[in-house]
Parts: sequence; C-alpha cells; structure tokens
Amino acid sequence: MILVTVMYPTGPKFDRDYYLKTHMPLVRERWSGMGLHDATVVFGQSTPDGGAAPFQVMALLKFESADAFAQAAAAHGAEIFADIPNFTEAQAQVQINEFA
Amino acid sequence: MILVTVMYPTGPKFDRDYYLKTHMPLVRERWSGMGLHDATVVFGQSTPDGGAAPFQVMALLKFESADAFAQAAAAHGAEIFADIPNFTEAQAQVQINEFA
Repeated sequence: MILVTVMYPTGPKFDRDYYLKTHMPLVRERWSGMGLHDATVVFGQSTPDGGAAPFQVMALLKFESADAFAQAAAAHGAEIFADIPNFTEAQAQVQINEFA
Repeated sequence: MILVTVMYPTGPKFDRDYYLKTHMPLVRERWSGMGLHDATVVFGQSTPDGGAAPFQVMALLKFESADAFAQAAAAHGAEIFADIPNFTEAQAQVQINEFA
C-alpha cells in the first residue's frame, strides 16, 4: 500500500463546497476500481502556535501500489487534474509515499 | 478528532533508523495517554512524474481533539522537539488539521 498526498498551499481561494461535493466524488468514482482504498480529506487550521497552516487542504489517498496509482493516473488523471481550476488556483504539491 | 501533520522537507540528512526506533516510540509513549490515537509515518518517494518528493518524511498524528494536542504539547513538547536534532536538521512544518 502507498499513500499519495495532494497538498494545496494556503493563499489562493479554495471552494471547499465544490471540492467535497464534486471533485472528491469524481476522484473516488474514477479510482475506486483501480486500487484506491481510501481518500481522506483534511483542512489545515493553524500551526501549533496559532499561525497560518502552510497547507489549506490535503487529500490522503491510499492506493494498492505505486503501479496501481500510475495506471489510475494514466487512465483518468487528465480529467481529474482538469477539474482543479474549478475550485482553486492553488498549485497542488503531489507526492507518492511509502508507509514506514 | 484532528490530524496533526509533521512534515520534514527533502534536503537535509535524516536518520530514519533513529527516527523509527527512538523518536517515534518516545512520541507514542508520551502522548498515547494524552489523546494520541494513531501515529502513522510515511516516507516520500517521488512526485508522480519521478521528481524529488517535497517532503522526505511525514508523521500523521491522530489526536482526540485540538485541546488534547495542546495539552500533550505543553506537557511533553519540549522533550520531543529537543530530540529532533538527533536525527535531522530539517525544519519540520507542523500543522493542525480538521477532518472534512
């Protein structure tokens, strides 16, 4: 299992309603049959000392394997990434992680 | 429940062995009785296109509440943060997140 993290920096506007009601359902629909086991979304609140959180939104996508994610991205990545400008201009930082 | 994310940028050296065998056990020991429900560690592998992952290590700490985390940090934060130079000089980005 791997974890794909999609992190949206704080700053640009972000339409949480669209993201939760349209974008994430699209992600789950396209990728659930391709190795996506879980998709958790969190919203950044603050740093521990009360400052601004560096990332306003993070999606934590648990995939069966790096290969499964590569195939899922190849199959539906274009459609999913093309939807991002509908809810934010923030540039997502995406990375693939292995569990310790 | 909230998620505290501790993210170490790629670049500085990072002693994974010390981190997994000494630092994270310390975190779990000090904070398990103070609202820490789960501590998951992931290692950044790459971006989807094969570039360097922005973060080399991320800890995902599920806490009972923001208050519980504040109390845990007040009680043992100094000791835990003082241990960081033992495994890396990377400056961790810490933020508190709420689940969507």
